[in-house]
Amino acid sequence: MKLKLGMIGGGQGAFIGAVHRIASRIDDEYELVCGAFSSNAERSKASGAALGISDERVYGTYQELIEKEQQLPEDIRVQVISIVTPNHVHFEPAKLALQSGFHVVLDKPMTLTLQQAKELRDVAKSSGKLLCLTHTYTGYPMVKQARELVAAGHIGQVRKVYAQYPQGWLSTFAEGDDNKQASWRTDPSQSGIAGAMGDIGTHAFNLTEYVSGLQVSHLCADINTVVPGRKLDDDGAVLLRFDSGASGVITATQIAAGAENNVKISVYGDKGGLEWQQDDANSLIVRYLDKPAEIWRTGGGYTSATAQFNTRTPSGHPEGYLEAFANLYRNFALTVKAKEQKEEPTAAMLDFPGVEEGVRGMAFIENVIASGRSEQKWTPFTI
Amino acid sequence: MKLKLGMIGGGQGAFIGAVHRIASRIDDEYELVCGAFSSNAERSKASGAALGISDERVYGTYQELIEKEQQLPEDIRVQVISIVTPNHVHFEPAKLALQSGFHVVLDKPMTLTLQQAKELRDVAKSSGKLLCLTHTYTGYPMVKQARELVAAGHIGQVRKVYAQYPQGWLSTFAEGDDNKQASWRTDPSQSGIAGAMGDIGTHAFNLTEYVSGLQVSHLCADINTVVPGRKLDDDGAVLLRFDSGASGVITATQIAAGAENNVKISVYGDKGGLEWQQDDANSLIVRYLDKPAEIWRTGGGYTSATAQFNTRTPSGHPEGYLEAFANLYRNFALTVKAKEQKEEPTAAMLDFPGVEEGVRGMAFIENVIASGRSEQKWTPFTI
Amino acid sequence: MKLKLGMIGGGQGAFIGAVHRIASRIDDEYELVCGAFSSNAERSKASGAALGISDERVYGTYQELIEKEQQLPEDIRVQVISIVTPNHVHFEPAKLALQSGFHVVLDKPMTLTLQQAKELRDVAKSSGKLLCLTHTYTGYPMVKQARELVAAGHIGQVRKVYAQYPQGWLSTFAEGDDNKQASWRTDPSQSGIAGAMGDIGTHAFNLTEYVSGLQVSHLCADINTVVPGRKLDDDGAVLLRFDSGASGVITATQIAAGAENNVKISVYGDKGGLEWQQDDANSLIVRYLDKPAEIWRTGGGYTSATAQFNTRTPSGHPEGYLEAFANLYRNFALTVKAKEQKEEPTAAMLDFPGVEEGVRGMAFIENVIASGRSEQKWTPFTI
Amino acid sequence: MKLKLGMIGGGQGAFIGAVHRIASRIDDEYELVCGAFSSNAERSKASGAALGISDERVYGTYQELIEKEQQLPEDIRVQVISIVTPNHVHFEPAKLALQSGFHVVLDKPMTLTLQQAKELRDVAKSSGKLLCLTHTYTGYPMVKQARELVAAGHIGQVRKVYAQYPQGWLSTFAEGDDNKQASWRTDPSQSGIAGAMGDIGTHAFNLTEYVSGLQVSHLCADINTVVPGRKLDDDGAVLLRFDSGASGVITATQIAAGAENNVKISVYGDKGGLEWQQDDANSLIVRYLDKPAEIWRTGGGYTSATAQFNTRTPSGHPEGYLEAFANLYRNFALTVKAKEQKEEPTAAMLDFPGVEEGVRGMAFIENVIASGRSEQKWTPFTI
Repeated sequence: MKLKLGMIGGGQGAFIGAVHRIASRIDDEYELVCGAFSSNAERSKASGAALGISDERVYGTYQELIEKEQQLPEDIRVQVISIVTPNHVHFEPAKLALQSGFHVVLDKPMTLTLQQAKELRDVAKSSGKLLCLTHTYTGYPMVKQARELVAAGHIGQVRKVYAQYPQGWLSTFAEGDDNKQASWRTDPSQSGIAGAMGDIGTHAFNLTEYVSGLQVSHLCADINTVVPGRKLDDDGAVLLRFDSGASGVITATQIAAGAENNVKISVYGDKGGLEWQQDDANSLIVRYLDKPAEIWRTGGGYTSATAQFNTRTPSGHPEGYLEAFANLYRNFALTVKAKEQKEEPTAAMLDFPGVEEGVRGMAFIENVIASGRSEQKWTPFTI
Repeated sequence: MKLKLGMIGGGQGAFIGAVHRIASRIDDEYELVCGAFSSNAERSKASGAALGISDERVYGTYQELIEKEQQLPEDIRVQVISIVTPNHVHFEPAKLALQSGFHVVLDKPMTLTLQQAKELRDVAKSSGKLLCLTHTYTGYPMVKQARELVAAGHIGQVRKVYAQYPQGWLSTFAEGDDNKQASWRTDPSQSGIAGAMGDIGTHAFNLTEYVSGLQVSHLCADINTVVPGRKLDDDGAVLLRFDSGASGVITATQIAAGAENNVKISVYGDKGGLEWQQDDANSLIVRYLDKPAEIWRTGGGYTSATAQFNTRTPSGHPEGYLEAFANLYRNFALTVKAKEQKEEPTAAMLDFPGVEEGVRGMAFIENVIASGRSEQKWTPFTI
Repeated sequence: MKLKLGMIGGGQGAFIGAVHRIASRIDDEYELVCGAFSSNAERSKASGAALGISDERVYGTYQELIEKEQQLPEDIRVQVISIVTPNHVHFEPAKLALQSGFHVVLDKPMTLTLQQAKELRDVAKSSGKLLCLTHTYTGYPMVKQARELVAAGHIGQVRKVYAQYPQGWLSTFAEGDDNKQASWRTDPSQSGIAGAMGDIGTHAFNLTEYVSGLQVSHLCADINTVVPGRKLDDDGAVLLRFDSGASGVITATQIAAGAENNVKISVYGDKGGLEWQQDDANSLIVRYLDKPAEIWRTGGGYTSATAQFNTRTPSGHPEGYLEAFANLYRNFALTVKAKEQKEEPTAAMLDFPGVEEGVRGMAFIENVIASGRSEQKWTPFTI
Repeated sequence: MKLKLGMIGGGQGAFIGAVHRIASRIDDEYELVCGAFSSNAERSKASGAALGISDERVYGTYQELIEKEQQLPEDIRVQVISIVTPNHVHFEPAKLALQSGFHVVLDKPMTLTLQQAKELRDVAKSSGKLLCLTHTYTGYPMVKQARELVAAGHIGQVRKVYAQYPQGWLSTFAEGDDNKQASWRTDPSQSGIAGAMGDIGTHAFNLTEYVSGLQVSHLCADINTVVPGRKLDDDGAVLLRFDSGASGVITATQIAAGAENNVKISVYGDKGGLEWQQDDANSLIVRYLDKPAEIWRTGGGYTSATAQFNTRTPSGHPEGYLEAFANLYRNFALTVKAKEQKEEPTAAMLDFPGVEEGVRGMAFIENVIASGRSEQKWTPFTI
């Protein structure tokens, strides 16, 4: 039985809305039944029509969507609402949706401020409803394999974690042109206090904690606005200290001219190391002190049950970004269904980012921007 | 408006059926409404139920599916039938479907024999209905880019074409175990006269003609059955002569132990060369006589309109096998819709393999197996 | 004690002469003491002077070199003569040198004809002197590692061997310009009956036999002259049958526009496979049926004693073409010294190509060109 | 005419001494004539004998070498002295050699302290003799190409510089075993105040300045000693600010278990970017805002005159670490010879690291260690 899905944002021309919809369809766990695709009612209607949604379930605002859907019979009513708007329209709709009895899929970063994030976490907990935060890169099977190898002690005790996220698409003052993506992501009123750090730095941060199983305790950041006229950071590097004493480095930039989106994570322990990068997403390089490095591959018969659970095809049939995204949607759906059937979701089902990751991500943004402005070297990672 | 899709074959446990369904969903152009998922009626019912298909539209045989669906009102009736059965159940259902007024998506190779393929081509033409043959690899945007660069003379006149398709999954006598994929693919009664040559050799052959824009005119094949006890070829190499005088080589094997599915195509002209491989599916290497090689990337702003038409995300967000497959389904859907609306499909819509490629593929199988058995060196490619 | 080295050919402007000299110096086993660097006496003198050779030991012809050096006292006299001339000046000087009591390093292919090769083999044997044939690629440590893994049964019984040698530098009619390399290599009177097949096909052939430990027994060749006006083949593909029953494919071309020199060898057995390519010369990919592929690396502590014997630096310090070449020179020197000291050279010392490989290489040329002209499919590999 | 070379250090069992000797031989510009290979006179003698040096020119101490060689006739006397000892034996012998009229090749880092470095710079200048500091990685042709592309404005104004130097060989307490390399490099009395930062951090630092053409003005460092019991840092990350306002990040570690020696440098400007790594040393990736990335290759006809000047073979014949090292030796020799012949060395000849780079390298060490210990965030790079 498919979950009935609604969408807030993601109207015609939006990038991430289309990605969410594809991700929701890949494993056939959702049916898109309603939406408030744009704050412009006419545009929302047009988007809904293009998506084949019946006109009466295309709404002009998220409030209307939630209110009207609540009044529908349970077997028709939306169950999961995906919120794919710019950051400043995350908190209120997510809060209202949860409080109104709907599960939520929310694009990252979770909110506009850490304060909102903490409140949303509390709302989620008290509502009994579930929230999935789309940190896509944790959806890749080889990222999950990496996490499991670390957790199992395969590389020994973690000593060093590197995450690099190089992009180049904001190398010019793109927000001066008619570039919708650039405009809102560099506008503090829509994006929050961070640009690159919020947009991609949070992904890198999330990867370091997800794969290493550690938590950042202190950081020291160099945050830059490189392109003249830009209002938010477009480049940064962050020294990290983890709770275990391990150290790390995050670099995230949107002005590495010509770079696409090749996010990388490397983790080294006292027995070996792991290296993964999105440009070769179906390979995980595993290194050892005294034997040849190995190439673990998506779909390999030797990969973990969790990795295989998040893979659709045999090894050698590359799965990419949309499949990683779909894994989040799929796992969330299985968890929602299990919960609604009063069953206990398995660990594999529960393997999607949620409110805790969202709070930590917002804390990363606030801590990293504060550190960037600070004369002090190491600052504690506070929440 | 989604096309109503039915499926023949692809019940629980089948690999390619699930792939077809995902591919059909990614771009939301289809709705699966009926199926005859297994020749075992009970298993068909169970598969249909698991897929959320209403019980009365899950059929026990393809004949029943076609007959019953024809009797349904037009707005409910299936429009496109995907046939994802082993090769010996391609021809009859495809023929019947076309003759009964349905469009067909058919897995490759098109039929069990060349004779069937030619008949099916004629049936398709006279039926006025459309057929899409799922040669997946031509769905990749960078393969399309390669084809266009060749056609535009970017690398000059084509001189040499290499296609390599190394797999290792049939290195052991897997058909002796309970391996469903291995069993039918190595069984002449289900697979036809070719094993590896039919299963993957046809893909390699199709790639050479698709990218080069040339047609094979003569060939000389070394066809082997390496694993003891196997009934069909599991390895082969083919020297090619194209109609233009260019030459080529296809190697395709299923006994390259440890190899996954890294199909490669390289084309060299008198001004440059192109190299693509599935393990790095989002890159196309373009070489020149006297300047640095270039890396063309899926989603790059400099890629062709057709390549971009077959891409969903910005560069650096890897799209893989399922997206390539989805491009076939999507383009076919757009063509079907255009035709049904009496509009002329664009060249981009029409960019999917069909009956002509199917006939050439079956001719490849028959010619290559005959050549393998022949003492004669070069034999003409006859249809 | 360094071996005293003389050189025939390799005057100013020659490519391979300089390579031989660097290779001879890297491990300090040789001292260049004399030469006949050019058939033009003046040019020979100038080359000798530039190389710091005393004028009286720079000769105008190879005959003069051999005759005069024989008359020098033993502690001054040349011991090893490197012959780095075009193919048509291989046989006579090598024969004369061996018969006159000198060891010989000879560039490949060994001679102009198979008949000469067999005669030279006999001369070498009866002379008691040694001959090293510079099939460079067998000098790479990871190629040696591959050979040893095959010999040790690491990948099981060999089933399939692929060698690919793509070059593009003869894509144009370079011999029409003032391109010395192109001119002699495409001239039958200097190069022999083969162009690409002799120049690089023999390397590919040698690699297949060296790594697999097998010998070719039958072949079927497609040999082409692609560039208009060219007198010899510039492209070819060869189907192989080995004595063990294994099969293989060699492709070698000099018209793959934009390709550099990325020779590759892959060998698959019933338990695993090996893949090596010169563009990543310090890595050997080892594949298995049921576990992750491994990356064996030059200098790795886990590599074989022979691989390490042919490596100068720790892993991660790339060694390249010149070091591979130097390994041939070094191993040859150690063998010569051992022999001269009446000691038994070790297997590692003896690991360089010699007259047997030379005869097989010339047989390859004659067989492959004959097959290319033949209507018959499989022809026996005759010597 | 070869330069007469002497060596201090580099006796049997030493790693870098052998590398220096190979590097000095590759281009035949040097002849090793004398040495003080070990502070142990007997071991020095044995090493000299193994190297074929006449016994009377094998010395027990560097003082003896310099004193005795000064007394030899000019046509016999050593001209260039290579100092390949641990860091604490750099300053005095280099100073004495320069003051005694000899040119010096010196391994990095230049001295034990910045103070020594500055003094040595002054000595070198007043002596009129030349000093080459072996920052090997600047010897690679594609690193030189990168520097030139930046200097020519090919990627626009530099904004971001990343250098990464991951090694894993000190992941264990190797200095507790009988590991000579580990022992001195982790011993403050021999290595100075820095471990990893001196050993490899200086290479990374040198690369950032060499390729970008900028100078570091401020830094902020996280310096760690990860392996218990170790006396010096084995890991670090450094935030950089350049004089132009560009920023950068250096990471250098010797505890990335399984990592070999894959130093990487990336530079991004406002028009494009450059990426080079030693594991693919013959490729330089050049990225652009709006066209395909390019792969510039060692030996390519399109590479710069300087790159080609530092290349021995055609593209596709990989040159590696030893050839990069040899480029330093060769360029230094050409400069020495030009100077001695009162000619002006060309810019290409002068392209080797010297005392200025040495002073900056020692300043890096002192500044980075001080920053690591500091609570202050950004500290000026002082000399």
